[in-house]
Amino acid sequence: MDVELSVAELHGALDDPALNSMNFLNEVANHYPDAISLAAGRPCEDFFDLDALHENLRRFCAYLADDLGYSPQQVRRAVFQYGRTKGIIHELIASNLQLDEGIAIDPESVVVTVGCQEAMFLVLRALRASERDVLLAVSPTYVGLTGAARLVDLPVRPVATGPAGVDLDDLVAVIRRERAAGRRPRACYVMPDFANPSGLSMDVPTRRELLRIARDEDILLLEDNPYGLFHTEADRLPTLKAMDEWRRVVYLGSFAKTVLPGARVGYVLADQRVAATDGSVGLFADQLSKIKSMLTVNTSAIAQAVVGGRLLEHNCSLAKANIREREIYTGNLTRLLDGLADRFPHPANGSARVTWTVPAGGFFVVLTVPFPVDDALLERSARDYGVLWTPMSHFYEQTAPVPALRLSCSVERGERIDTGLDRLADLINDQLV
Amino acid sequence: MDVELSVAELHGALDDPALNSMNFLNEVANHYPDAISLAAGRPCEDFFDLDALHENLRRFCAYLADDLGYSPQQVRRAVFQYGRTKGIIHELIASNLQLDEGIAIDPESVVVTVGCQEAMFLVLRALRASERDVLLAVSPTYVGLTGAARLVDLPVRPVATGPAGVDLDDLVAVIRRERAAGRRPRACYVMPDFANPSGLSMDVPTRRELLRIARDEDILLLEDNPYGLFHTEADRLPTLKAMDEWRRVVYLGSFAKTVLPGARVGYVLADQRVAATDGSVGLFADQLSKIKSMLTVNTSAIAQAVVGGRLLEHNCSLAKANIREREIYTGNLTRLLDGLADRFPHPANGSARVTWTVPAGGFFVVLTVPFPVDDALLERSARDYGVLWTPMSHFYEQTAPVPALRLSCSVERGERIDTGLDRLADLINDQLV
Repeated sequence: MDVELSVAELHGALDDPALNSMNFLNEVANHYPDAISLAAGRPCEDFFDLDALHENLRRFCAYLADDLGYSPQQVRRAVFQYGRTKGIIHELIASNLQLDEGIAIDPESVVVTVGCQEAMFLVLRALRASERDVLLAVSPTYVGLTGAARLVDLPVRPVATGPAGVDLDDLVAVIRRERAAGRRPRACYVMPDFANPSGLSMDVPTRRELLRIARDEDILLLEDNPYGLFHTEADRLPTLKAMDEWRRVVYLGSFAKTVLPGARVGYVLADQRVAATDGSVGLFADQLSKIKSMLTVNTSAIAQAVVGGRLLEHNCSLAKANIREREIYTGNLTRLLDGLADRFPHPANGSARVTWTVPAGGFFVVLTVPFPVDDALLERSARDYGVLWTPMSHFYEQTAPVPALRLSCSVERGERIDTGLDRLADLINDQLV
Repeated sequence: MDVELSVAELHGALDDPALNSMNFLNEVANHYPDAISLAAGRPCEDFFDLDALHENLRRFCAYLADDLGYSPQQVRRAVFQYGRTKGIIHELIASNLQLDEGIAIDPESVVVTVGCQEAMFLVLRALRASERDVLLAVSPTYVGLTGAARLVDLPVRPVATGPAGVDLDDLVAVIRRERAAGRRPRACYVMPDFANPSGLSMDVPTRRELLRIARDEDILLLEDNPYGLFHTEADRLPTLKAMDEWRRVVYLGSFAKTVLPGARVGYVLADQRVAATDGSVGLFADQLSKIKSMLTVNTSAIAQAVVGGRLLEHNCSLAKANIREREIYTGNLTRLLDGLADRFPHPANGSARVTWTVPAGGFFVVLTVPFPVDDALLERSARDYGVLWTPMSHFYEQTAPVPALRLSCSVERGERIDTGLDRLADLINDQLV
């Protein structure tokens, strides 16, 4: 058959496991639509409401008119015309960060993006200046970060996780090893709260020490926080950004889980000061905005209006807006953890063969088993057992099978979680025979 | 002052004129809001209508339910949840291309993007595989294309325009010169209908010959067509894609001018066959989709729904949907061209000192003057004369002043166009003294 192109002649990322991983996982899910999904990190769909969509659009337009004093023509222009590259809901985002995270910011340091994924891409594109540059990431790592790094030819160096969410000694060792090899570590990507995929969180002393290392070693921290509001315990820990005295933290914000994924609206808060070649000093956000202008021009104003309307509905507190969602997710997580304890009781003495992380919130639990877990096993699980999950190998730089799998508890509920775990236990027990 | 970063340590594109050009032009426009704008290529705002936004959303949801048989839950999921990377309005786009352009396509070869800008980025990212790769572009070139190329470190080689919209001899010469120097020309970017900024169109024999050269020289053609529907003459010429027997054309589609810019919805039609390393053959669209999954995940379903609803309103014909807009734009263009002829009459004998292109449609006219036109002159024009336009130097690889400026006739109307031209004539006559 005649072909016009070959993958070998296209950008290397296209033949990379990181870019094919998402495709493969989606294909399995589509092929077995009746399987119970402990795989997807999609948010719960209970409160999706078309009337609320229209209401939120109206509420945002009313805010432009009543609070910001826009004329009817200016309102229509804001929603329909080309707009500000950095976005039009930056002031609402600033209010949200003040209320929910105790972070006081200049709204000018926010770039509203097409989901958090574009935010990651903008930052990585800016930081990758030469072949010497490398990115560090706590491993296992969210595959979207790895994929974005591939698109800008930025190598990702894994940093060990450890029980506190990041192994700080390993972090320093990796930075020094890279420097000794002539490379330039630019930043370390971290998810301090209920990380995807590990589910682990960093305690406060670890956060403080991480910030100190970033300052001393002159690297940035890319803090990704999509799950922070879904905590099972009464109190939340402060974000890195809230503790960021030395402007080392670039904060990546997502509304996919706290408002809705279909809007594709996220943001990056980048208040770092950047010296231009002419000696003037500006915000890192303005550099990211220049990249955005050549990538997506601006984030859909209609989509921003929907998210803005939802923020306004709850006076900019997403913690308040997500009271019902938080209850559901924490209930699901407790049910999942209790269900694992029931099905894989730890022996009174002797070591357990199946172990798991016990997160204090978020969507994910990692189950470690005494056999390699690969894509073929996932396909068998879907076909013969009717349950989906994610092989942990997808979250590592090396694609060799890892004896672990990720379970998600965001989509399935109640007895479906129990049934999913029954099926998973059958699979695991059959493997253990 | 302490800084955390310096531009010198960030990606080279950030210090590039192409990325700063848009910023500069926006700044001048914002600084002189009362100046008459013959600069912006923004679409006319007469028909922006908030009620129509809600109606289009409802119409698209009704289509999902009634035509595609979605359950209410499936409708909500389509609009609110993460979705298909390639988009959800691909079938409507296929109908539109059939109706308005006479192009029969497989909807699977469409990737819906965050505006045409993301479509350009996806294609350039895919095609830039090594340092040998170069992109060709008819010069002067749309600055968004140059900016996207900068983000993937892809050099842009100018091809002369000539009176037929592209100088085919120069195209072949550039391809061969690049090959002789060990480089690999991947594609040539063209806007065959009412190009931005030149306003020029290619005649049919030129289009046919361009396709033949693309086949013989084994390059792709990136056809960008944002203005095709706004023709002053009764008949339109066929797009390159409609004449594309050998699958050499990647078609870049925009809804910014035909529906609305605020949705940020465009698409790329990429039906080229691509051989994978394992020998299987797929669509170029699927490779682009993998890149998109790591850039923006998917295009906002809400924004797609708004565009989809508008397509459905007119049975997928944007030509029909834009009858009023076409009338306005062609009226504006005629008024602008007549106004130029009135103010700069050509001498009966002897050569004219001020000349301009006479496009058969679109938004843009290029005025050539007998003095260099730089950014400083634009600032003076805005401040002292109250009229905005775009220095042509922004559309060239070299940033040296060029004795020409671009006029746009999309936003201003009627007597405002006349007044803008009066002011421009004052500026030009003062320069000629």
